[in-house]
Amino acid sequence: MKKENNPKKAVVLLSGGLDSATVLYHAKAKGYECHCLLFRYGQRHEKELKAARQIAKKAGCFFHVIAITLPWCTSSLTDRTQQLPSGHRLEKKAMPLVSLPTTYVPGRNTIFISFALSFAETIGAGTIFIGANAVDYSGYPDCRPDYYTAWNRLLRSLGTTMKIQTPLIRLTKEGIIRAGLALGVPYGLTWSCYKGASTPCGECDSCRYRAKGFRKAGIGDPALKKLT
Amino acid sequence: MKKENNPKKAVVLLSGGLDSATVLYHAKAKGYECHCLLFRYGQRHEKELKAARQIAKKAGCFFHVIAITLPWCTSSLTDRTQQLPSGHRLEKKAMPLVSLPTTYVPGRNTIFISFALSFAETIGAGTIFIGANAVDYSGYPDCRPDYYTAWNRLLRSLGTTMKIQTPLIRLTKEGIIRAGLALGVPYGLTWSCYKGASTPCGECDSCRYRAKGFRKAGIGDPALKKLT
Repeated sequence: MKKENNPKKAVVLLSGGLDSATVLYHAKAKGYECHCLLFRYGQRHEKELKAARQIAKKAGCFFHVIAITLPWCTSSLTDRTQQLPSGHRLEKKAMPLVSLPTTYVPGRNTIFISFALSFAETIGAGTIFIGANAVDYSGYPDCRPDYYTAWNRLLRSLGTTMKIQTPLIRLTKEGIIRAGLALGVPYGLTWSCYKGASTPCGECDSCRYRAKGFRKAGIGDPALKKLT
Repeated sequence: MKKENNPKKAVVLLSGGLDSATVLYHAKAKGYECHCLLFRYGQRHEKELKAARQIAKKAGCFFHVIAITLPWCTSSLTDRTQQLPSGHRLEKKAMPLVSLPTTYVPGRNTIFISFALSFAETIGAGTIFIGANAVDYSGYPDCRPDYYTAWNRLLRSLGTTMKIQTPLIRLTKEGIIRAGLALGVPYGLTWSCYKGASTPCGECDSCRYRAKGFRKAGIGDPALKKLT
């Protein structure tokens, strides 16, 4: 049994950050009918969901917000009493990756993709888009190419033609931003800071990668411009 | 980076039905320290969760109940207005599997396993047990051996030593029950009926497979005996 899904209908995992916003606009530019999936998982920067909603609306896309609970999770991304790391990987590029930053949420992308699979199967979507990136990233194992190759094998084992696409996986943050600007991504609406306060902290890994990307792309961050 | 988890510590997916109860007792007999995971996903037979709780307690195991929402789901297992199918596969064994019964919940096992992965990673468990069975089953694609082979590949891609075990996958329902009886599985506590009324309907696929198993094993169903 081979289940044929519509290859031009897609579920897009949208966090509200700049990577997933870029993926959404990439998918739209490629002619995909996009249905977005947003997650509330106890993240301290829950305000990224407001950004994701605005981005989906601006892109004219339908979205679902899924709430999940991970009662065992001890990540500093969900536990507001912990300090967020700063520069965990940025200064350690030459070192082997032997530990993960405390912001790692075990199984997060696996859970997100499993819901995307359920949604895609139901609406007959043949593609799942995720903004995973294995260049300017925090070293999370669920952002690397091998993991997505394995996911596509798993999808085939289910007898579906569905595929996961990771168009940003080998791009630098600068490359992502340059591509996104050409696509008209509303970066002013995106939110990256892990702290989720009223303004970006500028210190967490996510803020640092973002700042590095805009600096290298030679333009100011439109989300910061909004604030000044 | 290779993350070493404790191979004798396990997360067991427990539904409250007879397959997962058998798996739990199998894992315990093999010396695993078992942590159970139960799901409320809008199933009309939510009373299976009461059974699962009782089984976990009887086995002396810790458990989490996870509530998830699948707003797109149109399965007859979650939509109480639909009629449940009866004998979908039982009478069609010689036919190729071209359609799934309406009880199929898209992505269900994938979602369950993704949460199990998150839980196992956090507590350092090296094994996930699931009572999937590809013999006396409704033809769901997420119950077949290829799918679990693909999952184990995916786990390796994450750099973990974690593995999924499916000890029942090639057993008949009769074989599962015979094995379970030898392990002391409290089948009187288990609940299989999809309808979830006060007594099993005896007509849904799940009731039929269960009845066939006990009949072939040559013993009465202890859950029915309790009712008489």
